[in-house]
Amino acid sequence: MRITVLSGGVGGARFLRGLRASLRESHPDGSGGTTAEITAIVNTGDDMWLTGLRIAPDLDSIMYTLAGANDEVRGWGRVGESERVSDELRAYNVGWPWFTLGDLDIGTHLARTSMLRDGLTLTEATERITARWDLGVTLLPVTNDEVETHVVVEDAGTTMHFQEWWTRHRAAVTALGFVQQNVSTARPAPGVLAAIAEADVILVAPSNPVVSIGTVLGIPGIREALAEASAPIIGVSPIIAGSVVRGMADACLAAIGVETSASAVAAHYGSRAGGGLLDAWLIDEADASEAATIEAAGIRAVVVPLWMRDIPTSAQLAADALAAA
Amino acid sequence: MRITVLSGGVGGARFLRGLRASLRESHPDGSGGTTAEITAIVNTGDDMWLTGLRIAPDLDSIMYTLAGANDEVRGWGRVGESERVSDELRAYNVGWPWFTLGDLDIGTHLARTSMLRDGLTLTEATERITARWDLGVTLLPVTNDEVETHVVVEDAGTTMHFQEWWTRHRAAVTALGFVQQNVSTARPAPGVLAAIAEADVILVAPSNPVVSIGTVLGIPGIREALAEASAPIIGVSPIIAGSVVRGMADACLAAIGVETSASAVAAHYGSRAGGGLLDAWLIDEADASEAATIEAAGIRAVVVPLWMRDIPTSAQLAADALAAA
Repeated sequence: MRITVLSGGVGGARFLRGLRASLRESHPDGSGGTTAEITAIVNTGDDMWLTGLRIAPDLDSIMYTLAGANDEVRGWGRVGESERVSDELRAYNVGWPWFTLGDLDIGTHLARTSMLRDGLTLTEATERITARWDLGVTLLPVTNDEVETHVVVEDAGTTMHFQEWWTRHRAAVTALGFVQQNVSTARPAPGVLAAIAEADVILVAPSNPVVSIGTVLGIPGIREALAEASAPIIGVSPIIAGSVVRGMADACLAAIGVETSASAVAAHYGSRAGGGLLDAWLIDEADASEAATIEAAGIRAVVVPLWMRDIPTSAQLAADALAAA
Repeated sequence: MRITVLSGGVGGARFLRGLRASLRESHPDGSGGTTAEITAIVNTGDDMWLTGLRIAPDLDSIMYTLAGANDEVRGWGRVGESERVSDELRAYNVGWPWFTLGDLDIGTHLARTSMLRDGLTLTEATERITARWDLGVTLLPVTNDEVETHVVVEDAGTTMHFQEWWTRHRAAVTALGFVQQNVSTARPAPGVLAAIAEADVILVAPSNPVVSIGTVLGIPGIREALAEASAPIIGVSPIIAGSVVRGMADACLAAIGVETSASAVAAHYGSRAGGGLLDAWLIDEADASEAATIEAAGIRAVVVPLWMRDIPTSAQLAADALAAA
């Protein structure tokens, strides 16, 4: 079975870890192996150049989480992290003082940057970097073109990099919209269209619908490939009981005029029959009252527990998503 | 008084530290201040790109030493260094496993790389980076062009970067010669020719005559500026009692057919009257017997203790060099 997942960073990482666990549990010989191939198509809109480093937050969040090298307490980055290099950069007045790069994380960024400078694509660099770990999931950047998300802020006409808005301003500066740099000329990275076309199931992780999944869907050719895919497309709501599960995705939704609710995000993605994305949409029990609205929009609503508190609950959620397919 | 010093890395750094101490001691108001301006013209032939970082070993050795941030025990790099990033790079199979980059050092390299990527020259980046510390010496890279030294090795026609030969092979692979990349089209960096023309004294630090001072002298325009300078040029021998004080400069000298002796290096530099570099040459008491040979070559020989065991002995050596002028 080939499973393809559209994913952002932290939420997508937890979902993918659950999916991997679910498949290992269900493997018939109980070996912990899996006959399923999981491919994640990963958002690169949060990527950026900073102090000469190419940073790819979502690819790294997924890699660290699947490798068991992530910081569970902090919720992002590497466990056992330190900040010796960042302290130096601050002393030299270089970079963004509010954006901390951990030393272990810088190791990843330097490895990636070195490969890119040597002429490798992000796809190739990601393959080499992830080869260090036994991830059980193939990570594909959605594109090898730089499509960094910029945020149009209140001060009309002013834009800032998404990371500045998200990390420095904690999304507290009102966003008027989001702009993907160079998106009109971006192309899906090698393997991406095939992973969609050849999938038996396509899952949409509970990631930020605007800047994570939105970036993936914004790359020319992706929506068309999804529309033509033979696999069912099952999404998982990132909204539970009218709130975002993590991050500040509500500020992103507000910027594009979408209400922070499971049904509004479903309507934003649209029903597949109506030319949109979704065949089915997993919503939490707390949002069961929205099921009728979702179904009325032509999307099958599946009510299950959505909280990924730990690996077992994440695995159950992934199993529910597969069952819905 | 304007003092300009031609310098390589570690040996030059100690000499400069001694020079600064000597001038502070001799300042008439005893304030520890100095009315002398010291400018170091620094070798960049050891520089390189490694894992996306621009590394400038000699500039950094001097900066760390003058800042008191150098590792006195190890003899190079930053004190209190760690290698967390390098361990990561090794795990990703990136870079040169035999070339360790410390975390604090990577902070410097990243700051430099970031500035270069932003379009600053090495001169400008060096000015910004050194502004962090109270060095008391202006550091000027000899050129902003990349003139990396490559070594022609036994296997005729094969070359490797100087750092590979020096650090990985410990200079144990016979060198047939050295090649400065792009040296014929390199230009002196801003400030370099003026620092030579306007100097009251020019000193040649006890650095590697071939790959450090040799690179400085190899930049088109430098030799001419030195020949025309009104200041006396005083060199300090890096050879004591027929041995190099540090490093493996003897392997470099052998490659260009120069004997490892104070007088042979003096002859290699040449007398100023004869179209060469030196007005005077400081040699150690252990080499006093070579004084006559040096004088016969048209260079004044000055016999003084050359060992820079600590700051006081380094300061005395620098004072002797100034006195010789």
